[in-house]
Amino acid sequence: MDDSVCIVGLGLIGGSLGMALRARGWEVVYVDPNVDERDALARAATRRVTSPAGPLVVLATPVDVAVEHLGAMPRLPDSVVTSVCSVMQPLEQSAGDLRFVAGHPFAGSERSGLPAATPDLFAGRPWFLARSEPAVERMVRAAGAVPEVIEAAEHDRLLALTSHLPQVVSTALASLLADLDPRLVGSGARSLLRLAGSSAEVWQPVLEANRGNVEAAVEALIVKLRNLSPGDFDRANRLTR
Amino acid sequence: MDDSVCIVGLGLIGGSLGMALRARGWEVVYVDPNVDERDALARAATRRVTSPAGPLVVLATPVDVAVEHLGAMPRLPDSVVTSVCSVMQPLEQSAGDLRFVAGHPFAGSERSGLPAATPDLFAGRPWFLARSEPAVERMVRAAGAVPEVIEAAEHDRLLALTSHLPQVVSTALASLLADLDPRLVGSGARSLLRLAGSSAEVWQPVLEANRGNVEAAVEALIVKLRNLSPGDFDRANRLTR
Repeated sequence: MDDSVCIVGLGLIGGSLGMALRARGWEVVYVDPNVDERDALARAATRRVTSPAGPLVVLATPVDVAVEHLGAMPRLPDSVVTSVCSVMQPLEQSAGDLRFVAGHPFAGSERSGLPAATPDLFAGRPWFLARSEPAVERMVRAAGAVPEVIEAAEHDRLLALTSHLPQVVSTALASLLADLDPRLVGSGARSLLRLAGSSAEVWQPVLEANRGNVEAAVEALIVKLRNLSPGDFDRANRLTR
Repeated sequence: MDDSVCIVGLGLIGGSLGMALRARGWEVVYVDPNVDERDALARAATRRVTSPAGPLVVLATPVDVAVEHLGAMPRLPDSVVTSVCSVMQPLEQSAGDLRFVAGHPFAGSERSGLPAATPDLFAGRPWFLARSEPAVERMVRAAGAVPEVIEAAEHDRLLALTSHLPQVVSTALASLLADLDPRLVGSGARSLLRLAGSSAEVWQPVLEANRGNVEAAVEALIVKLRNLSPGDFDRANRLTR
C-alpha cells in the first residue's frame, strides 16, 4: 500500500495527523484554502492540492463541511475516504456509493487550529471506525492510535451522552448564570463552566448532526435532575473515584 | 465587646474560623464531640465546652443540625447566634425569638473536616449576613472576611443557581454516565464531573433545606437545555472570558 494521504482541513486534528504521518515518512498532501501555506508545508504537509484526491482521503473538517464534501467528491474505484468527526451516522448516510468509513479519533485539546497541532495527539488513543477498512486502520496505527470498530449508530448514541451532552450542559448552565454576581460562582461550580468557552461555530453543526441522540440524552439527564436520589450520589461517587 | 466566640462544629469552616480568630487573640471555645480534643485544642480552639453558650455562638454544622440547635438553644438576652450554612431562610425561620442572624462565608475547599482547616480560608472573601449585626460583623472582620448584608430569600435564590444547581447537575450527569465506557468521557466532559465526588451526606440536607429554590433553578436550566441557541453560546462565552 501507499504511504500517502490527502487531508482535507488542517485544523487541530488534520494538522496533528499530518505531523504524525510525516514523522513516519508518509506523503501528506492537503486541501485547505484557510491556512497559511508556508505554515502548512513547514509543519504538517508535503504538498498543497486544490481538490481531494488520492488512494486515501481524510475529511478533517467540521461535520457539516464533511457532508458537503461527501456529496461533491468524485467516485474513484481505488479511493477510500474517511472522516474524523465526533458524529458518524450522518456521514455514513451522505456517502452513498462512495467507499467511505466514518472515523473518530478520541483525542483533542482545549485549543484548536493548526497552531495547536502536535504529532503525538493520537498516541495510544482509541480511534473509532464504523467498520474495518485496512487502508484506514493502517493510517490510524501509523498515527500512533489504536483502531477500534464500533457500529455508527451506537457510537453516535454514546458520544451524545459522554461528549455532546456535557457541552450542552456547560453552555446552558453558563448562559443561565451569565447575569448573576460572578463572586457567587465558586471554584467547584466554575469547573462545570470550563467547556462553556467553546464556540457555537464549532458545536452547532455537531449538535445539529446528532440532534436525535442529543435530545434523548438531554431528556435522560432531565429525569435525573428532577429525581436526584442518594443512589445517584453513590453512582456519581463511583465514577469519580 | 468580648473577643470571645463559641463555635459549634469544628469542620472545615468552624475549624478555619477558630484558627483565624485564635491568631487574632480571641478566646475560642468549641462544641464538637466528633473531633479529637487534642487536635481541636492544638489548632483551632482554647477550650472545649459541652453545650453552646456565650455572647457569640457560631453554628458551623450541616444545615439540618443547625436547625436542631436553633430549636434547642436557651434564649439568653445577651447572646447572639449566627450560622455559616449555604442556606439562610430555613435557619431564620427556625430561630423564632432567638437573637439570630444567618451568615454564609463564601469560602471553601475540595477537602472537608478539621484537618483541612486553615486560618486564611476567609481572607478577603465575602461573608454574607442576613442583616447587620455588629457583634457578628466584628467577628467576620477579625477572621479576615468582608461582611456583606443580603436579604435571606435573595441569598437562597441566588445560591440555588450558582452553587446548589451546579452540584445537582454534576451528580446527575455522573450518575447518567456511570455505566458507560469511561474511555469515552474526555477531559472536557470530565471537568463537569469534578463536583460529583461530593457526598450525599453533605448535600442532601442543603438541597432539602433549599428545595423550592433548587427546583426552580433546575426547571430554569431545563428550559435552556431544551432550547439551546447560538445566543446561549454567546452568553456562555461572555461568562468564561
